[in-house]
Amino acid sequence: MTDYFLGVDLGGTNVAIGLLDVDGTILAQNSIPTRVADGPESFVKRSCQACREMVTRADIDITKVKAVGIGSPGPLSVSKGRIIKAGNLPGFDNYPLRAEFSKQLNMPAWVDNDANAACWGEFWLGAGKKVTDMVMLTLGTGIGGGIIIEGEMIYGSQENGSELGHTIIQPGGRKCACGQLGCLEAIASASNTAARAKEALAEGRPSKMQDFLKTNPDLTCKDLFDFAIAGDELALEIVDGTARALAQICVNMLHITEPQMVVLTGGMILAGDFLLNQVKNHYHKMLWNLKTETMQITLATLGNNAGLIGAAGLALHAHQQNKLPPIGT
Amino acid sequence: MTDYFLGVDLGGTNVAIGLLDVDGTILAQNSIPTRVADGPESFVKRSCQACREMVTRADIDITKVKAVGIGSPGPLSVSKGRIIKAGNLPGFDNYPLRAEFSKQLNMPAWVDNDANAACWGEFWLGAGKKVTDMVMLTLGTGIGGGIIIEGEMIYGSQENGSELGHTIIQPGGRKCACGQLGCLEAIASASNTAARAKEALAEGRPSKMQDFLKTNPDLTCKDLFDFAIAGDELALEIVDGTARALAQICVNMLHITEPQMVVLTGGMILAGDFLLNQVKNHYHKMLWNLKTETMQITLATLGNNAGLIGAAGLALHAHQQNKLPPIGT
Repeated sequence: MTDYFLGVDLGGTNVAIGLLDVDGTILAQNSIPTRVADGPESFVKRSCQACREMVTRADIDITKVKAVGIGSPGPLSVSKGRIIKAGNLPGFDNYPLRAEFSKQLNMPAWVDNDANAACWGEFWLGAGKKVTDMVMLTLGTGIGGGIIIEGEMIYGSQENGSELGHTIIQPGGRKCACGQLGCLEAIASASNTAARAKEALAEGRPSKMQDFLKTNPDLTCKDLFDFAIAGDELALEIVDGTARALAQICVNMLHITEPQMVVLTGGMILAGDFLLNQVKNHYHKMLWNLKTETMQITLATLGNNAGLIGAAGLALHAHQQNKLPPIGT
Repeated sequence: MTDYFLGVDLGGTNVAIGLLDVDGTILAQNSIPTRVADGPESFVKRSCQACREMVTRADIDITKVKAVGIGSPGPLSVSKGRIIKAGNLPGFDNYPLRAEFSKQLNMPAWVDNDANAACWGEFWLGAGKKVTDMVMLTLGTGIGGGIIIEGEMIYGSQENGSELGHTIIQPGGRKCACGQLGCLEAIASASNTAARAKEALAEGRPSKMQDFLKTNPDLTCKDLFDFAIAGDELALEIVDGTARALAQICVNMLHITEPQMVVLTGGMILAGDFLLNQVKNHYHKMLWNLKTETMQITLATLGNNAGLIGAAGLALHAHQQNKLPPIGT
């Protein structure tokens, strides 16, 4: 007689939905289009319908499903269960996501940031499943952060914490979309890594990327890594800057919350060990040797399922701690 | 029928001892010489004797004293209750401080870092008494850090966390005593602020400090601040660098654990609002304006008593949570 949990990973294009047991086994999984333009009511209605159908098909009594967890782009308020403002979900601002899911499924709900959900997924069942203290960095358009201390997600006093991408690591450095100078994100996100390459190319720096750029003006971070792996010096220099910035945040987090593990995820980790080894090398060169430090730096293992698993996992965790809000709130 | 707690603040020269009630009222306070050269056994014996005498003089039944808290220089292991290695306490390495205090006073004991004790003191009864999430920076020879999240001290997975002075804020920057480059401490501690001034003077930079240095080769951070307050341009520039570095760690901690308050303490805060206002100005200039942030930056209020109060307070906190180890361990 186990309990079950639903996980919903809300993206700008698709919504991934899954039914998990308390061990994290995915019993069923589905994906439906988000259809942002139809508004949040339509999204919730179709998502809840997909959830109910999934439970029925899995032949599980819905009263055994104890809660639904939703991972959503933010910023959002976990305590209020609302999206505050999500760039790629116009019309969803201030929508009471948690209350609506909870009402329509008639079960408690938990809404959290998608970065936190992915972090929790890796912590529960992925790279971090053997640790109690973990940091995750999501390397995409921006850099999202997640911090877990002694098995608990850190939200910050006003729910704005864990924004590791906006720690300033090079004062007076490259301007970030957030307005600050020298943020980690401004240097080391996938988008900004590609942008730094394009800036260097625009300055006329010699590279095989110059020819490539003529037919591919949207040089991506993946393109850049391909050139770096092929030995292009400028590409290697740009990637090195990214790896150094990531190593610096690893050193800093070791000295702040001292996790046992930093997990890298997001599109950039397609570069695999080529990226990871450079981050580790810079980390070991930068770090003091006063004490023996055992923090691991590693890549995420759950891929795209991390958000779905983590959303269900956060609902399970809140359930175990009696922290789920009443149904309909 | 209230409970009482003893607090012991172990320093390289003197030991401050106090008897507090559960509200933090100091009922009695005393100071004895540490006499480091006599070794840790002598120190513990004399400290415990002073504790017992204090309780007797206060006319309190010692069975009502529930625990003793000891704040000590580190690094130390809170879980083991031992100093690992303390630079200014030769001979105290690996000494079982907690077990000995506990045996000799026949009550549970709690040993913690002096920086954590001072942080907890300010959190309990000082600048941070109205907040739940706080960061403290102790600006002395080095820079010590303390982090409190939702009313709990953060230690890190291997008890090496909260070393905020060793976060790298200027990659490739000034060399720190710890071996890293560009640590906060290497730029903004009292000692390194004075050292940066002396380096600039050695380069021949014009300043009224050049004359002063001829008769005062040990230019201190306080001297530097006096020149800055009097309008000396080089002194102002050096202080500005310190204020910028402190503002950067404030921005970074806002984005990491998001405290409601950052408290500055240590010798450098004798400079008062002159320092504080510069830190705040840089903080507001550096920080994004994406969200309305309400974090306060302020000065500690308990002065030298913070360590004593916090040591007793950490013992009280551990008592309330049933986390005090058994007597004699």
